Amino acid sequence: MSTAEAVKLREAPPSPVDRLQALVAADMAEVDTLIHARMGSAVPLIPDLAAHLVDSGGKRLRPLLTLAAARLGGYAGRHHVKLAAAVEFIHTATLLHDDVVDASALRRGKIAANIVWGNKPSVLVGDYLFSRAFVLMVEAGSIEVLGVLARASAVIAEGEVMQLKSANNLAVTEAEYLKVVSAKTAALFASAAESGALLSGGRAPFVRALREYGQNLGIAFQLIDDALDYSGRQAQMGKSVGDDFREAKATFPLIVAYARADEEARRFWRRTIETGPQHEGDLRRAIAYIEDCGAIAETRARAHLYAEAAADALSDYAETEIGAALIDVAAFCVGRGY
Amino acid sequence: MSTAEAVKLREAPPSPVDRLQALVAADMAEVDTLIHARMGSAVPLIPDLAAHLVDSGGKRLRPLLTLAAARLGGYAGRHHVKLAAAVEFIHTATLLHDDVVDASALRRGKIAANIVWGNKPSVLVGDYLFSRAFVLMVEAGSIEVLGVLARASAVIAEGEVMQLKSANNLAVTEAEYLKVVSAKTAALFASAAESGALLSGGRAPFVRALREYGQNLGIAFQLIDDALDYSGRQAQMGKSVGDDFREAKATFPLIVAYARADEEARRFWRRTIETGPQHEGDLRRAIAYIEDCGAIAETRARAHLYAEAAADALSDYAETEIGAALIDVAAFCVGRGY
Repeated sequence: MSTAEAVKLREAPPSPVDRLQALVAADMAEVDTLIHARMGSAVPLIPDLAAHLVDSGGKRLRPLLTLAAARLGGYAGRHHVKLAAAVEFIHTATLLHDDVVDASALRRGKIAANIVWGNKPSVLVGDYLFSRAFVLMVEAGSIEVLGVLARASAVIAEGEVMQLKSANNLAVTEAEYLKVVSAKTAALFASAAESGALLSGGRAPFVRALREYGQNLGIAFQLIDDALDYSGRQAQMGKSVGDDFREAKATFPLIVAYARADEEARRFWRRTIETGPQHEGDLRRAIAYIEDCGAIAETRARAHLYAEAAADALSDYAETEIGAALIDVAAFCVGRGY
Repeated sequence: MSTAEAVKLREAPPSPVDRLQALVAADMAEVDTLIHARMGSAVPLIPDLAAHLVDSGGKRLRPLLTLAAARLGGYAGRHHVKLAAAVEFIHTATLLHDDVVDASALRRGKIAANIVWGNKPSVLVGDYLFSRAFVLMVEAGSIEVLGVLARASAVIAEGEVMQLKSANNLAVTEAEYLKVVSAKTAALFASAAESGALLSGGRAPFVRALREYGQNLGIAFQLIDDALDYSGRQAQMGKSVGDDFREAKATFPLIVAYARADEEARRFWRRTIETGPQHEGDLRRAIAYIEDCGAIAETRARAHLYAEAAADALSDYAETEIGAALIDVAAFCVGRGY
């Protein structure tokens, strides 16, 4: 490392996510080892394909919630490591299945596993990881926790099916969008936190608080994700934007922008989202429409409300190191530029 | 019903599968009700797509094994109904995911759900049913049984991934084929029977016997399925044949036929299975090669060995009504012409 890099690293204050990660660093190292052990198989394609996602540098936010919730509840056992790995496997399986495309769909943007290996291997390796998640939960030994995560998995799938209808559809309402997000994203955040709390043997109000924290954090997180996908600043930084636009998904910023659009902008949205085709330059124009009408600001404001609700849910635990970090994570997640 | 039809129905002796079904008819009616209740969702596409498979007239052989095993073990509770429904959901999810095709794959034969609704809904509804299966298992309350079915699900996915390699590949050996079948088909038969036995609180040798019965029955069942796919008689009866040939899968009859082929036949197999293209008339020629060299007879003989092993596993229970029916089911399954 150069001196300049070292100075830069020293100067960057740790984010709340880093702080939370540091608080459960030893546990998370075990989760990582367990994930790699349990994604193994005598069939080499399975770990190869799984590694494409597992080692892609994700922040492991969901298993982090499980570990933190268990510790916050005073859990002193080792089973939270298994639950956290299971949560990450469910997430990975969802990503693999989410990337599967219909024959009619166009595929652009970054290279997904299904592009490298094909749809079918992506589906089957997702199934494998999903099954291994349940094996891990069985080993964790709590049928109550298993119920929480099994029900969440069903809700996630329901949310994904609901979302199919939001493609090429400008009639999607804010309420419908939020219902989809509550299911497809927030359900796993909620059950990740709840399962750790439940495993710790915490009382009902504690378990409920962690669930509520996760649910609201998940919605806030997704709203910011959706905003970033139309962020001109992101585009300037060379980061990938426009996936939702190209896939013609009705996300929150788009719903707001369409509601505020004049006739010319409506014609643009109808062509690019509902009827096609999209042309070169359309994404730039979409970003301009969305930023200029205040839809990004509106999306961020909405995300802030959910982040506040997440923080409020944990107000009784704000004096603890983990509780304070979780509260700060909520604020940080909506402020993030990535 | 015409008199002729009524006479014919009266004359046809009930098959062992019918006999077994009659022995658990009340339970199976509950399973059916539960399946329909639990495949429901506020998202209408889910039950619509699920019904495409659930109501397609399958014999419900796998849940039948669960019910029969529980009853054979003297189980007097109601949870076996939930387990049986869970087993059928796992099977249905597997079928939905099995039908997903890679962008490059050609699609022929009967209309699969993914053709009607697209790949992505098939994947997501499969995930939904799979998750609902685990919710049902949680309700059944046995974490031990949950472990059996979770591990089986992972093995099934592994088997499906292994099978991907058997497409366009004449180098697949009998041993490799049997390994795939043990995983992708027999694992669910085995765990369906084992889970019922385990739920009944039966002792280890009983549970082991049911598992062994299911495992061997599953292999026999798949071998016969593979033979029927090259059956000229089936073709004459107007039934669908040739799916495996068109998908260029190395199944048991093909592996045997290729090993016995002369140079001309080998050239035919290399073209139709490994390099393509397939022409009109190729399926008829494939069926002729496979039947003439005795590969169908060999496949059936092998299936008989597994059916015998299945029957042997239950020899201690041959005096009971259910045990005798299960033993007869094994013999019947390899004799079947459908």
